[in-house]
Amino acid sequence: MITTTGALDRAADHMRTQDVDALLLGPGADLRYLTGYAALPLERLTLLVARRDRRHALIVPELERPRAAASGAGDLAEIVTVSETGDPLAAVASALEGAGTGALRLGVGDRLWSTFLLGLQEALPGASWERASAITRELRMRKSSAEVDALRRAAQAIDRVHARVSALLKPGRSEAEVGRDIAEAIMEEGHQTVSFVIVGSGPNSASPHHESGARILQPGDAVVVDIGGTVDGYGSDCTRDYVIGDPPEGYAEAHAALEAAQAAACAAVRPGVTAESIDAAARDPLTGAGYGEYFIHRTGHGIGLEEHEEPFIVAGNELVLEPGMTFSIEPGIYLPGRFGMRIEDIVVVIKDGGERLNTLDREPVRV
Amino acid sequence: MITTTGALDRAADHMRTQDVDALLLGPGADLRYLTGYAALPLERLTLLVARRDRRHALIVPELERPRAAASGAGDLAEIVTVSETGDPLAAVASALEGAGTGALRLGVGDRLWSTFLLGLQEALPGASWERASAITRELRMRKSSAEVDALRRAAQAIDRVHARVSALLKPGRSEAEVGRDIAEAIMEEGHQTVSFVIVGSGPNSASPHHESGARILQPGDAVVVDIGGTVDGYGSDCTRDYVIGDPPEGYAEAHAALEAAQAAACAAVRPGVTAESIDAAARDPLTGAGYGEYFIHRTGHGIGLEEHEEPFIVAGNELVLEPGMTFSIEPGIYLPGRFGMRIEDIVVVIKDGGERLNTLDREPVRV
Repeated sequence: MITTTGALDRAADHMRTQDVDALLLGPGADLRYLTGYAALPLERLTLLVARRDRRHALIVPELERPRAAASGAGDLAEIVTVSETGDPLAAVASALEGAGTGALRLGVGDRLWSTFLLGLQEALPGASWERASAITRELRMRKSSAEVDALRRAAQAIDRVHARVSALLKPGRSEAEVGRDIAEAIMEEGHQTVSFVIVGSGPNSASPHHESGARILQPGDAVVVDIGGTVDGYGSDCTRDYVIGDPPEGYAEAHAALEAAQAAACAAVRPGVTAESIDAAARDPLTGAGYGEYFIHRTGHGIGLEEHEEPFIVAGNELVLEPGMTFSIEPGIYLPGRFGMRIEDIVVVIKDGGERLNTLDREPVRV
Repeated sequence: MITTTGALDRAADHMRTQDVDALLLGPGADLRYLTGYAALPLERLTLLVARRDRRHALIVPELERPRAAASGAGDLAEIVTVSETGDPLAAVASALEGAGTGALRLGVGDRLWSTFLLGLQEALPGASWERASAITRELRMRKSSAEVDALRRAAQAIDRVHARVSALLKPGRSEAEVGRDIAEAIMEEGHQTVSFVIVGSGPNSASPHHESGARILQPGDAVVVDIGGTVDGYGSDCTRDYVIGDPPEGYAEAHAALEAAQAAACAAVRPGVTAESIDAAARDPLTGAGYGEYFIHRTGHGIGLEEHEEPFIVAGNELVLEPGMTFSIEPGIYLPGRFGMRIEDIVVVIKDGGERLNTLDREPVRV
């Protein structure tokens, strides 16, 4: 776990600026970032009440107290235990006493389960509800050097996995078999968890989030391999394209256009430009080359404690990039029924540009 | 995936009874149960709008359409695609047109992320919001024979893993090392995913949800091993106790009391009794033997597509058990700083009693 010293204090500063009285955060990345506590997502409520006045409380089910205490979160917030038959919502209401002068303005964790939000809305009928990410994104989007270092180690680990993939892609094997071997390689190369393994072969390569399945690899297949895991809590995420034998008709030209678009987007990264301008830098050349309608997703997503987080590299996002922001650049071309391709690197915004953390060649690997 | 034919129709019947106009269900067990679609949990909204009048729609991000279509969900609901820059909330509002005559009464998936519920509440200001589980629990709590069969296969698979655990628990190894080996064994014995691996040794055994860590196993350790995975989407979950060498003082007496309590609770299972009566059947003898304050959690939880689901075996739950309900019975004793123990089996309610799906011996295994 990377320590983000002072993160709760900085969150309180943002609460003051944004006139929010408290954040209510369940298990997940915000809680880990602010307190170091990797809470289990359970039907029993775990909730950090992070107050603008810094009188924080961490409400935990009784049987989770040892794990919560071991995380060190008790140094930052008072740990309040709720028994199996106790009322966690009453504990939240109590932890919010005196947090505001009028009707409470509360920021609720974006991924908190709705069953808890409905309970909270009932227990606190006068409050107004916002997304906590309006505040936590301001912290989490700008990575510290320790966080960038973790992302770099994750990127290097996934690059080592990709270097092993072509040996696994043999005609006659199924996507699922290859996927299992890749999952093992993800752990062997230094990740602590496997986040996802996408092996889309032949026509399946045209489904961006294809689930590795029973299809048997065969000569002439285009194969998209998009894989990731975590290192010290931070994610890797890298896509490369493979071809078994001779590529299908039209593949080489399309891939050359994709490489150019991906390179153009990476070259456009620097502080002061908008997220949507990076999307346009990838999209415009593909549109010009006639592939625009086959590039059916945004260009990228932020990455950190979550696989997908802010900033999103998408049309309409006018967010201005700053040093320390980290995100994927992953344009793709998907021709339904024929083949698909995607090239993905993680990029960090540095002082005078962008640095790719994934450094493997981007041409299709012929196996 | 077990097919639950007609589940959407039965959900619509319950909507009529409970006067709910539609259910709004995101990725997760409800969606899988009702449509067979194992959607990815993404920051892009995927939402099943299941209407009382059976005009169902499945709203999916454009790049998920191939996966959604491949699931067969398109036979049950109209698949509506939203592009990367489209407005999924407008698509939901449109899919709800004509669903009710007055203000809409909507059941929202218990685990839908709050960011989506806040968006829905803003987009549909006149609606009232309930938990969808009030309806989906009525279906999912009563397992079909195919579902019980999947749970039985999962239980048999985890029993085979426990039969291998004592060979892994060697003094000098860390909890984490043992945990990694157990995770491999979970896959080798026929699970498709590893859900969790708890190896709590020595004083760590007194933390019910201890994370397998760096602690080195040593003679005299009590070890709690609580493990589970999934088979065809359905979970296994089984806890057994191990002792390395001679047990700590007081351990044998406590374990004998725990075995008796767990057996009493299992014997109390039959149709017509309440969930809380099963909790009492485990708790009362432990309280009588002086261990009541060290049994700090409920006796059990339902299990199926989710590791923890209804019915919960806890004081205050007056739900009456029926054939086909499946849940854990897992009393524990936790002496802080000394040792802990827990015995857990999955039980299915049958016509004239309860049947344990886990059949291994329940005494502590001495290694």
